[in-house]
Amino acid sequence: MTDTTKHILLMDGPDQTGLIYHVTGVLFRQRLNIIRNDEYVSPDDKSTATADRPGQFFMRTEFEASGPLDGPALLTELRQTLNPDINLRLNPKKKKNIVLLVTKEHHCLGELLIQYAFDELDADILAVVSNYNHLQPLVSKFGIPFHYVSHEHKTREEHEEAILRTLAIYEPEYLVLAKYMRVLTPGFVDHYHNRIINIHHSFLPAFIGASPYKQAHERGVKIIGATAHFVNNDLDEGPIIMQDVKEVDHRHTATDMATMGRDVEKLVLSKALKLVFNDRVFIHKNRTVVF
Amino acid sequence: MTDTTKHILLMDGPDQTGLIYHVTGVLFRQRLNIIRNDEYVSPDDKSTATADRPGQFFMRTEFEASGPLDGPALLTELRQTLNPDINLRLNPKKKKNIVLLVTKEHHCLGELLIQYAFDELDADILAVVSNYNHLQPLVSKFGIPFHYVSHEHKTREEHEEAILRTLAIYEPEYLVLAKYMRVLTPGFVDHYHNRIINIHHSFLPAFIGASPYKQAHERGVKIIGATAHFVNNDLDEGPIIMQDVKEVDHRHTATDMATMGRDVEKLVLSKALKLVFNDRVFIHKNRTVVF
Amino acid sequence: MTDTTKHILLMDGPDQTGLIYHVTGVLFRQRLNIIRNDEYVSPDDKSTATADRPGQFFMRTEFEASGPLDGPALLTELRQTLNPDINLRLNPKKKKNIVLLVTKEHHCLGELLIQYAFDELDADILAVVSNYNHLQPLVSKFGIPFHYVSHEHKTREEHEEAILRTLAIYEPEYLVLAKYMRVLTPGFVDHYHNRIINIHHSFLPAFIGASPYKQAHERGVKIIGATAHFVNNDLDEGPIIMQDVKEVDHRHTATDMATMGRDVEKLVLSKALKLVFNDRVFIHKNRTVVF
Amino acid sequence: MTDTTKHILLMDGPDQTGLIYHVTGVLFRQRLNIIRNDEYVSPDDKSTATADRPGQFFMRTEFEASGPLDGPALLTELRQTLNPDINLRLNPKKKKNIVLLVTKEHHCLGELLIQYAFDELDADILAVVSNYNHLQPLVSKFGIPFHYVSHEHKTREEHEEAILRTLAIYEPEYLVLAKYMRVLTPGFVDHYHNRIINIHHSFLPAFIGASPYKQAHERGVKIIGATAHFVNNDLDEGPIIMQDVKEVDHRHTATDMATMGRDVEKLVLSKALKLVFNDRVFIHKNRTVVF
Repeated sequence: MTDTTKHILLMDGPDQTGLIYHVTGVLFRQRLNIIRNDEYVSPDDKSTATADRPGQFFMRTEFEASGPLDGPALLTELRQTLNPDINLRLNPKKKKNIVLLVTKEHHCLGELLIQYAFDELDADILAVVSNYNHLQPLVSKFGIPFHYVSHEHKTREEHEEAILRTLAIYEPEYLVLAKYMRVLTPGFVDHYHNRIINIHHSFLPAFIGASPYKQAHERGVKIIGATAHFVNNDLDEGPIIMQDVKEVDHRHTATDMATMGRDVEKLVLSKALKLVFNDRVFIHKNRTVVF
Repeated sequence: MTDTTKHILLMDGPDQTGLIYHVTGVLFRQRLNIIRNDEYVSPDDKSTATADRPGQFFMRTEFEASGPLDGPALLTELRQTLNPDINLRLNPKKKKNIVLLVTKEHHCLGELLIQYAFDELDADILAVVSNYNHLQPLVSKFGIPFHYVSHEHKTREEHEEAILRTLAIYEPEYLVLAKYMRVLTPGFVDHYHNRIINIHHSFLPAFIGASPYKQAHERGVKIIGATAHFVNNDLDEGPIIMQDVKEVDHRHTATDMATMGRDVEKLVLSKALKLVFNDRVFIHKNRTVVF
Repeated sequence: MTDTTKHILLMDGPDQTGLIYHVTGVLFRQRLNIIRNDEYVSPDDKSTATADRPGQFFMRTEFEASGPLDGPALLTELRQTLNPDINLRLNPKKKKNIVLLVTKEHHCLGELLIQYAFDELDADILAVVSNYNHLQPLVSKFGIPFHYVSHEHKTREEHEEAILRTLAIYEPEYLVLAKYMRVLTPGFVDHYHNRIINIHHSFLPAFIGASPYKQAHERGVKIIGATAHFVNNDLDEGPIIMQDVKEVDHRHTATDMATMGRDVEKLVLSKALKLVFNDRVFIHKNRTVVF
Repeated sequence: MTDTTKHILLMDGPDQTGLIYHVTGVLFRQRLNIIRNDEYVSPDDKSTATADRPGQFFMRTEFEASGPLDGPALLTELRQTLNPDINLRLNPKKKKNIVLLVTKEHHCLGELLIQYAFDELDADILAVVSNYNHLQPLVSKFGIPFHYVSHEHKTREEHEEAILRTLAIYEPEYLVLAKYMRVLTPGFVDHYHNRIINIHHSFLPAFIGASPYKQAHERGVKIIGATAHFVNNDLDEGPIIMQDVKEVDHRHTATDMATMGRDVEKLVLSKALKLVFNDRVFIHKNRTVVF
């Protein structure tokens, strides 16, 4: 009877000759069994890479140990064979703890709740926070705490402060903006650096900002889309995780496009979350590397 | 033995009660057989439509006559039953005469030449005009006149003047910019109002302007696209006819994206042309209605 | 203050010269305002059409009346101008009454329940019937009757008889098989002729029958799909309403494909239902005409 | 001034602990620089893998040497660290030599000729062989030998014998069936084991055999597709390399579907060839692993 445990090793940093060799060597000698290995060297950096300025290396190694793993010891041994500027993380393979932020629209929330109810989300939804109470009935059906934190009569900072206090109860690993329609301040974003995921209702960078379906309709586009991205301090400008699109034609009003767009949005968000929660997304500058 | 002739009736203008009834009545009494009828009333205009300001009506009727058609007589009869502000056109169903403008890239040109060689283009390519001579060998294989009109040592106006003189030989119904990489002046565009079709190497309105694949790569998008549109006097802003997309990921350099983009470009241009050459595209404000 | 009512007129039958003219004439004289008109003549039949055997004509006309409509009078007047073999139906524009049949899988059911909860389904879900009780907790969250009709210790006929008795309570206009994994007998299907919609977990006609994702994996396909279709008496052979697909590769196991396939299934079913519930689907032989 | 040479190492066989470690170790010590590494262990085999029957391992390593490479020496050193049942191949990175077989349709041929003319094919087209002479004019434009080998008045075996004699002149590495509409005998296929690529005009395994678009139309499908696959001795049953699809609706006749299908066919074939010619496709049983 084995008690194997699964782990994910994440590495990124400047490329170094023999990197794969060194890392797989450590795992081999420790009798850790590699289940899946993905690596990638950024070709763009590489094209201008020199001895002083090599390409950027990314590797995700999923492995299993026949029993509990001494993570710190493994990391120490790995660091001895690697350049000091290589970033190493070691995660147990397990569900992430998340909190959802929503406003009034239910389509992304509904999708995630159903997935959660049937254990398909790769995450535990600790709570849902909203600046309106419209979605409380839906959330309650699933037995998840719903926090109504109105923004009325509050400055943006006061409102975010109230949300942060609520989040502090749960200490989530990720915040998911499942159609949260307010812009977050840099101060708020800093609290969850590279840990906030947003679904933007357009094919970024087209139609940045408000009313993208109205903009899309006025421009007469033949395809609409949605974009899941990490949130950084430039609105709609964070690293893109996933995008998808849908064809439209002259018969679709801006309202039709918004209706159709919701299906794209919920699927794009849902797939992007699956990637993030499985530690398959690296952020490098303003781009993602997705394994 | 019948000598049926096929015709396309195009109508657009403010909506009017009984329009379809009046038009189909005239055709019925003249024993003209409707093969296909498409009509559409712009829902956006309609939402704010009043007795004074109705929706916009579009209709394309393909019909056949058992012999030659007296077009002017038919148009006269139709006009008697219709409001004077309704625009009527009657085209025989036949190939369009076109001239292609190209620069150095061959992928769209090659696609159109192969289609033309096997009679699949719904158009006759009268000539190819280019500001470089790179593509002369390819064009010559297909026995089509190639005009090398260099832009060197010429002002933009002088260069366009030279192109216009070349075009005057052919009197094309449409100009197709099959990767013609120079911006046209309003003066030039006016000569071919709503008759110039361009393929833009991005999913407009994302990445307007130069080097869209480089821009796309830097933004880290997960999907690239191409847009076929009519050219008006705002660069990259004319009515969109067709768009399509292709998925990319972090492994693709800007050069890879450009390579992959070429397949999208040539198919999007080729499909858009098929629609235009079959009189299936109406222009209304800055949008198209495509039947 | 107007009390306009909306209606949908559906016509199909052998093509007849002047059909559109006659019908639009009746509506015009009765001051009924056409909002949208779609018509189509089957080109295949047409290619071999003669005076004796014309093409097949389909028309869907959405119109509004400024007050209640005398439907029988309108139908009588229409019939006077039309050949007797043309089939006419007149529906008020309203939600359909439906019952869902499910087995154990929740993804299609969950999608439809969320849509229903937010009034996006164009139908009222009167009840959910299942041969297992697994999905009762989910259905109960939405306050919809759930009928557990086990098939154990029953013949197929006895089980279907029990389901029919349950359905008789609700008299639904449509039955939706939202992953109902049992084959229905011709006797059952006859009770709901052309009113049962199924979602099949493959790109029909590939992988007909059981375990399509396992079959797909073994064949090494690079794309999987789903098909929404009407149920007739040949298993998996009824008229197709909608299909969609998703790319897969060698890394996907049969289980992965099934997981990915669920997203396709639920969207395909959901879109197909929207078309059917809006009276936009005609059945002709074993094909559909979808406006 | 460096004279780097590029090479591709291909490995497949039963999985073995430390495989990546051993191989990257050899390359590291020989100062060969890995540009790109892809590896994969078949999860299906793995699920039932035991010490006696492990998963199947696939690895493609692209590396560069600073000068000419002693390939045999490298292979010898690699074999010493690996189990004997692991298959190893070492290819220089270079264009493949190919011959095209065609019948009457030009769309795939035209696409490949244009790509070849502009050095985009990753292969040299040594000749085109056809059982009709219809395409000779097109091929001649590009200065490529065209061999007209009629099948008339010949048995299947005599015809294939004649083709094999023609092929013997060129000794191609791959045969591309670019719409070659005759079934090949097992005897012929054996001459080019795993080296014949076909484009099938349907989304296999739907509509196997003749007239797939006619079949698709009769079944009323809403999506058509094309499949590029290796040819083995079961007609339409070889390992699939790539598939793609396109939406259709009731308005499309079987002829329309065939016309639309041609665009899918030529792109699918063209992309599949790019993968094969870059040594990115492994065959395992009846499936492909594509890096």
